[in-house]
Amino acid sequence: MKQSLLFVPTLKDAPKDAEVKSHKLMSRAGIIKQTAAGIYSYLPLGWRVLDKIETIVRQEHDKRDCSEMLMPAVQPRDLWEESGRWGEYGPELFRLKDRKDRDFCLGPTHEEVITQVVRDYINTYKKLPLALYQIQTKFRDELRPRFALMRGREFIMKDLYTFHTDDEDLDVWYDKIKEAYTTIFKRVGLETKIVSSDTGQIGGKEADEFMVMSEVGEDIIAYCDTCQYGSNQEFSKLEAGDTCPKCSSGKIKLAKGIEVGNIFKLGTKYSTSMHALYTDQKGQQKPVVMGCYGLGVSRTLMAAVEQHSTDNGILWPEEITPFRIHILPLDPKDAQINDLSYEIYERLSKNNEVLIDDRDERAGVKFKDADLIGVPYRIVIGKRMEPGYVELINRYTNEKNVIRHSDIEQYL
Amino acid sequence: MKQSLLFVPTLKDAPKDAEVKSHKLMSRAGIIKQTAAGIYSYLPLGWRVLDKIETIVRQEHDKRDCSEMLMPAVQPRDLWEESGRWGEYGPELFRLKDRKDRDFCLGPTHEEVITQVVRDYINTYKKLPLALYQIQTKFRDELRPRFALMRGREFIMKDLYTFHTDDEDLDVWYDKIKEAYTTIFKRVGLETKIVSSDTGQIGGKEADEFMVMSEVGEDIIAYCDTCQYGSNQEFSKLEAGDTCPKCSSGKIKLAKGIEVGNIFKLGTKYSTSMHALYTDQKGQQKPVVMGCYGLGVSRTLMAAVEQHSTDNGILWPEEITPFRIHILPLDPKDAQINDLSYEIYERLSKNNEVLIDDRDERAGVKFKDADLIGVPYRIVIGKRMEPGYVELINRYTNEKNVIRHSDIEQYL
Repeated sequence: MKQSLLFVPTLKDAPKDAEVKSHKLMSRAGIIKQTAAGIYSYLPLGWRVLDKIETIVRQEHDKRDCSEMLMPAVQPRDLWEESGRWGEYGPELFRLKDRKDRDFCLGPTHEEVITQVVRDYINTYKKLPLALYQIQTKFRDELRPRFALMRGREFIMKDLYTFHTDDEDLDVWYDKIKEAYTTIFKRVGLETKIVSSDTGQIGGKEADEFMVMSEVGEDIIAYCDTCQYGSNQEFSKLEAGDTCPKCSSGKIKLAKGIEVGNIFKLGTKYSTSMHALYTDQKGQQKPVVMGCYGLGVSRTLMAAVEQHSTDNGILWPEEITPFRIHILPLDPKDAQINDLSYEIYERLSKNNEVLIDDRDERAGVKFKDADLIGVPYRIVIGKRMEPGYVELINRYTNEKNVIRHSDIEQYL
Repeated sequence: MKQSLLFVPTLKDAPKDAEVKSHKLMSRAGIIKQTAAGIYSYLPLGWRVLDKIETIVRQEHDKRDCSEMLMPAVQPRDLWEESGRWGEYGPELFRLKDRKDRDFCLGPTHEEVITQVVRDYINTYKKLPLALYQIQTKFRDELRPRFALMRGREFIMKDLYTFHTDDEDLDVWYDKIKEAYTTIFKRVGLETKIVSSDTGQIGGKEADEFMVMSEVGEDIIAYCDTCQYGSNQEFSKLEAGDTCPKCSSGKIKLAKGIEVGNIFKLGTKYSTSMHALYTDQKGQQKPVVMGCYGLGVSRTLMAAVEQHSTDNGILWPEEITPFRIHILPLDPKDAQINDLSYEIYERLSKNNEVLIDDRDERAGVKFKDADLIGVPYRIVIGKRMEPGYVELINRYTNEKNVIRHSDIEQYL
């Protein structure tokens, strides 16, 4: 892809409201752009990373017998009355009326819709278990939208819902999805901790959160270096006034985390209120047992930038980088340099995602933007090198080699 | 994929409000499910087809130097005041207030947002042209939602916006995208006619629509078999009271069309009102010239079903079929049949998308559902055949062959 056509509006200065590193960098590197408080566009670079994250999420879910579908954003009040959440949910729920004055909301989650979708179908134990997910835009009218994609009002989530005959089957699937999440976060380049949590407005009996440890996280997590507590994915989220009964040493430490995933054993909360019943092997009617599993796709993008960057720029993890190779022709008006650059570009593009900085800009501008954008492998072509030679930089290791251009593939 | 895990809730009867064939079939085949009037979920089969359509749309846009991004659904009133459309747009615009009583709408199109996104960047002729698109959920509060995905209130669209220094450059890109659309619709299996149209609420000076000829279309198109009029992609959309000056024979005929795409030369309507200005080579400031190009992704799904089906079921075009091969083991309790079915399933899945009907259902049910679902190549395995033999059906040609299972690949 030619950089001039990609639309990467890099900026010298971050917007004034950008408090944290990732927010600053995502604005400066042309990854996102704000439209309103907590509401952002994903520009082409950001979209490419989102697409990579979504692909990984899909692969790990499909592999585990989950089926993808897509539910609507606009949800009718009736369904939320059935579950009882129309009255329960606070001002975070965006509410609206249609032209006939009927009430709707913009979905922050989809328990109601999915239960309505499946309840006629799953009337017998023969049709269970079932696991359905979507990757979709969600809405939450946050009181204080903050840190760009961290606490936004419109965001992208993967939400999975599972349906079971009993708690034992739910337990098996819960563990399977927990493991899928660990794999997903590892693949996108994030180190996560699992924290058991309360079930909040979603309801249910057991829940875990996936946390990326970060200074800018909004959740506080307790752990202890002395006793076992917190050492082995057994962190607890700390609420105001909590004590920590599990910590025997008393030497509790606190850390901050960004919540990138949460999974819930819902039990029969929604199936009871919304009459999602199945007939078991003995002919008895029972409410279906449910689980739900959220993963913040846009928040994962933000957490990845927060973890994989310095103040001067990003360095994307291998599996989610928007491009693998960035070619910087330093003297594009020199015909020889230009020809060589495009020859390499065409050649590498066959097996790689390659970005070429074809802009008529000074070397300094190109280097600064390239640092900001964060593509891991960089090829610099300029008049200072011998003809036919290029500089290849591996930004993960900072290794630099001036090599013949025909040797590039060997080094990559 | 195993059919038992995919979630394909087929139905004997279509919902009462389903008036047209595609609506009936999409409901009966478990492709969509209604949540509210004009608001649908795409179930796994429907989602797979959507995904195929989106992939084709992406390929044909990326190939033509367009960059993908993603803009928000919730848009602030300020932007719509800038363009003047907040007051102009009728009750089709879903409007809502946030918790601080600020006005927003749910985007039916994104001219305002994209202009805000790019206007600071494209301040010089050096950064033009630029072409940005998204595939995204749109909202329109239709007075009478109808025909499921044809006139829905929440729907999926691809919208592309292009930016130019002058009309000549817009013309070049307009023709290029027109050609892309023709290619896209051909690939998804739809025959379309191009109709010049008025520019409506979007604004601008020239526009074309892509129409799929269909009895259930809502637009009326005039053509004539005697004179040239209407014979060569020169159809006109007829409004009430129109005459047809271009038809010399006077033997006008009328047909109905489903609008699946529309493209507009916007000119400077939005760039003038929203101050998207660039400096030309002489140092003069000018408004950027814009084009916009919509393609109804969910409506294309519906039009494909309408064109490629009988009352008993669908037959998906090759490039958008949710699966290529459907395996029907007729006696799954017979170990030999079962083993052979799964052996073939595993083998073919390596290079094909394969669905296996693993449900404990009678042969009649499996055949009826398979006809409904519409996978083009079917493999039937049952006790009536010699051991090791299967029946292979090509549903495009209706050719049926009983062959050794090891010969399947040769026939496909």
